[in-house]
Amino acid sequence: MNYRVVSYVIGLVLQVEGAFLLLPLIVSLIYKEHIWQHYLIPALICFALGWLLSRKRPQHETLYPRDGFITVALSWLILSAAGAIPFVLTGDIPNYVDALFETVSGFTTTGSSILTDVEALTRSGLFWRSFTHWVGGMGVVVFIMALLPMLGASTMNLMKAESPGPSVERLVPHVRDTASLLYKIYIGMTLLEIACLLLSGMSVFESLTLTFGTVGTGGFGVLNSSIGSYSDLQQYIIAVFMILSGVNYSFYFLIISKKFKDALSLQEVHWYLVIIALSVLAITINISAITPNLPTAFKEALFQVGSIITTTGYSTADFGKWPPFSQTILVILMFIGACAGSTGGGIKVSRIMILGKTIRKELATIVHPRVVKKIRMDGHTIAHETTRSTNVYIAIYSIILFMSVLLISVDEFDFTTNFTAVVATLNNIGPGLNTVGPACNFAHFSYFSKIVLMFDMLAGRLELFPMLVLFAPSCWTRPVKLSFRVKHILRKK
Amino acid sequence: MNYRVVSYVIGLVLQVEGAFLLLPLIVSLIYKEHIWQHYLIPALICFALGWLLSRKRPQHETLYPRDGFITVALSWLILSAAGAIPFVLTGDIPNYVDALFETVSGFTTTGSSILTDVEALTRSGLFWRSFTHWVGGMGVVVFIMALLPMLGASTMNLMKAESPGPSVERLVPHVRDTASLLYKIYIGMTLLEIACLLLSGMSVFESLTLTFGTVGTGGFGVLNSSIGSYSDLQQYIIAVFMILSGVNYSFYFLIISKKFKDALSLQEVHWYLVIIALSVLAITINISAITPNLPTAFKEALFQVGSIITTTGYSTADFGKWPPFSQTILVILMFIGACAGSTGGGIKVSRIMILGKTIRKELATIVHPRVVKKIRMDGHTIAHETTRSTNVYIAIYSIILFMSVLLISVDEFDFTTNFTAVVATLNNIGPGLNTVGPACNFAHFSYFSKIVLMFDMLAGRLELFPMLVLFAPSCWTRPVKLSFRVKHILRKK
Repeated sequence: MNYRVVSYVIGLVLQVEGAFLLLPLIVSLIYKEHIWQHYLIPALICFALGWLLSRKRPQHETLYPRDGFITVALSWLILSAAGAIPFVLTGDIPNYVDALFETVSGFTTTGSSILTDVEALTRSGLFWRSFTHWVGGMGVVVFIMALLPMLGASTMNLMKAESPGPSVERLVPHVRDTASLLYKIYIGMTLLEIACLLLSGMSVFESLTLTFGTVGTGGFGVLNSSIGSYSDLQQYIIAVFMILSGVNYSFYFLIISKKFKDALSLQEVHWYLVIIALSVLAITINISAITPNLPTAFKEALFQVGSIITTTGYSTADFGKWPPFSQTILVILMFIGACAGSTGGGIKVSRIMILGKTIRKELATIVHPRVVKKIRMDGHTIAHETTRSTNVYIAIYSIILFMSVLLISVDEFDFTTNFTAVVATLNNIGPGLNTVGPACNFAHFSYFSKIVLMFDMLAGRLELFPMLVLFAPSCWTRPVKLSFRVKHILRKK
Repeated sequence: MNYRVVSYVIGLVLQVEGAFLLLPLIVSLIYKEHIWQHYLIPALICFALGWLLSRKRPQHETLYPRDGFITVALSWLILSAAGAIPFVLTGDIPNYVDALFETVSGFTTTGSSILTDVEALTRSGLFWRSFTHWVGGMGVVVFIMALLPMLGASTMNLMKAESPGPSVERLVPHVRDTASLLYKIYIGMTLLEIACLLLSGMSVFESLTLTFGTVGTGGFGVLNSSIGSYSDLQQYIIAVFMILSGVNYSFYFLIISKKFKDALSLQEVHWYLVIIALSVLAITINISAITPNLPTAFKEALFQVGSIITTTGYSTADFGKWPPFSQTILVILMFIGACAGSTGGGIKVSRIMILGKTIRKELATIVHPRVVKKIRMDGHTIAHETTRSTNVYIAIYSIILFMSVLLISVDEFDFTTNFTAVVATLNNIGPGLNTVGPACNFAHFSYFSKIVLMFDMLAGRLELFPMLVLFAPSCWTRPVKLSFRVKHILRKK
């Protein structure tokens, strides 16, 4: 373990969080809520602690993949632990475990809430709650990498740990430039949606908070009815930006680079859009009987499909009352998730594609044993490493899923509630079905279940491995021991 | 495709079924039900058709893996189609689709039923219904291989297609001897349970039928209360034989061969027993509050855990009324299933072990990138092929699971019903939760859903690949085309 680098990065993360906490402070001043000190104190603590930890720039800058995983996992834990403090101080969420649940849900862009009455929160509290989505969407460590020319080439291992998808590619040769480019696109998307919502007549406060929840694919709203009470135009704007936020950011990079042909030939984006189109069609037909007219059915279907596949979690209708067929489509979309390299969660369209191609290959091998087939995507052969780790990913995912359902079942809720609560948190969606449906919340769960679900949210956002490596005792040993082991094994051969 | 061999094997299967149909005929004569002709007619049809198909012994006896898969898949389809006829003729199940559902459920040792009143059936009907479990348990194609020295070494591909587990091993060098040995152990186990039940005071008819359901891990009973109304001793006998039937038959082979040390060191059996012990312990504690006393809680827990992990599906208690924690354990056991090389279904303990070891290896690779680890079981290194096909198995399994839940959700039952109905059929268990719980049945589903669930039962019993290969259009082409393709590809390199 390279403890120096780990603590250096965590120090930077804390300082960035300190800076971010000044934003709700400003909001509290604007709305004259007289609670600015409740943001200033945690901000100062973050600055102080962060400065202490990152005072010395590490000399030995090599980061092994496990160091990347551990740094990112610890960063997110500390980020959440500190981010929850203002909610307790302002009294918005007096209980620290509940505040932590809400903050983890925010940073991981899940959007599951323990609040029964969102509208009772202070303006600054609502702002901070939504802003955590924005920070978590593209990732705080990537943010730091965009800002600072801090570490060498091995920072790729940090990016790999925080960015979603089966294989992370550098858009441009340098990691720092890639991080900076990602944030530029992200900020561009954010500003565009704010502009659209403002033009549609939405207030500045709502335009900002709802945009944070959309582009970060989070799902925290500022009204108890989520998005249901906004105008049709505003609902369509949010639906479109949700779907845009679930697209692989490589697409936007290629568009900006004027490589239109390459952009339009990205297979993952094709599949993503095809899945959306088919789901919207099926649900529109299925719910048309229980909605006033076909346009309403289409609008609700488009919004909900966009919200669930991108794992945002906003709702305009209580899909808990939809027919089982539509509900099952939504549950399947919960698992599929958005594109890799987007701000969305879930298993990711590209992983599903790799799985599908692996299955086709296996069947082809049975039918024609001597045909040698390679798995290809976008014209490139997929590395054997990637298919293997995709398979392992699904396996770990299933085990965490079932163990979590078992653990939270001690709270005696029904199976659908437990199952969809875990699916909704592990895929960073937000609402599930029954007791955790779009019209309900996660308040009823015990502290124990809330901790399990927080783990699921973090495991889902960081794509399992960082959270698991954190619990592997052997990873806390120093690299020296490793080389001994390797030598020993090599000698045995 | 080697059509000759395929039709030859199917012909033999039909003749064997014709012979088996004489058993319920005898039962109907004993109980003077005057319906013997309803068994004789289908028996004669099976003999005639079977003789026609297998008249000519094929000269070219090479069987490719795909031929094995297709032969077995078609055999099971035809076996079920013919086996359903007596139910319609005797009026036990007048509707052919329902009769087919019950027969597929029988042969695949699932035990899901569309009957609301089992006790209304004729004795001969109940006997045939339970006997299908016995036939399906060890497999009809394996039965034929045990009887006839029919084909060359490539019959291994038939055995692979019908026998459960990630990799099928010959217990003894010759395939025929292996098949014969398996059936000898199977018959020994059957006779032992019949003897135990008779000694416990059970009637001959019930001893036979319940034993067929136990050793075949099927689950069809002859009373509406399943096993609930039998004595404690009889319940314990059945529980023990269920658990014994879920053990890998290699264990018994090693015991017979006096290789006790090897038998006792089979890792899959260890894990199987540990999972059972832990589940029984957890459920006993969890349900102790709702049962009269601790021994009853233990008895019910042992019986239900044994019944579900071996995918038998007998019940002594309505576990639909158990606390969610116990229910969730049962749902997880539904997925795990029994040992490979047993008559039980599910994913199989050995596949779960391979998955677990793959995950450990992947995490170890992240923590110590240069450590080369191999996956081992019972002292042998597991072939890369086996781990890959295990991963693919889980992937296909998940896709079939979710597609089936989606398809049957058009019937508008709740999510738990649909999800557990598919889990119960795909894993060949029998009962699920809610509308398909142990106190209910599958009668309410539409024809369409019943067909989907029949596919799931067959896919589960034959372990996915045979049923999928059946639908791959390219597998119906002749091998000649294959060699052209291979040459073409080789030339391209």
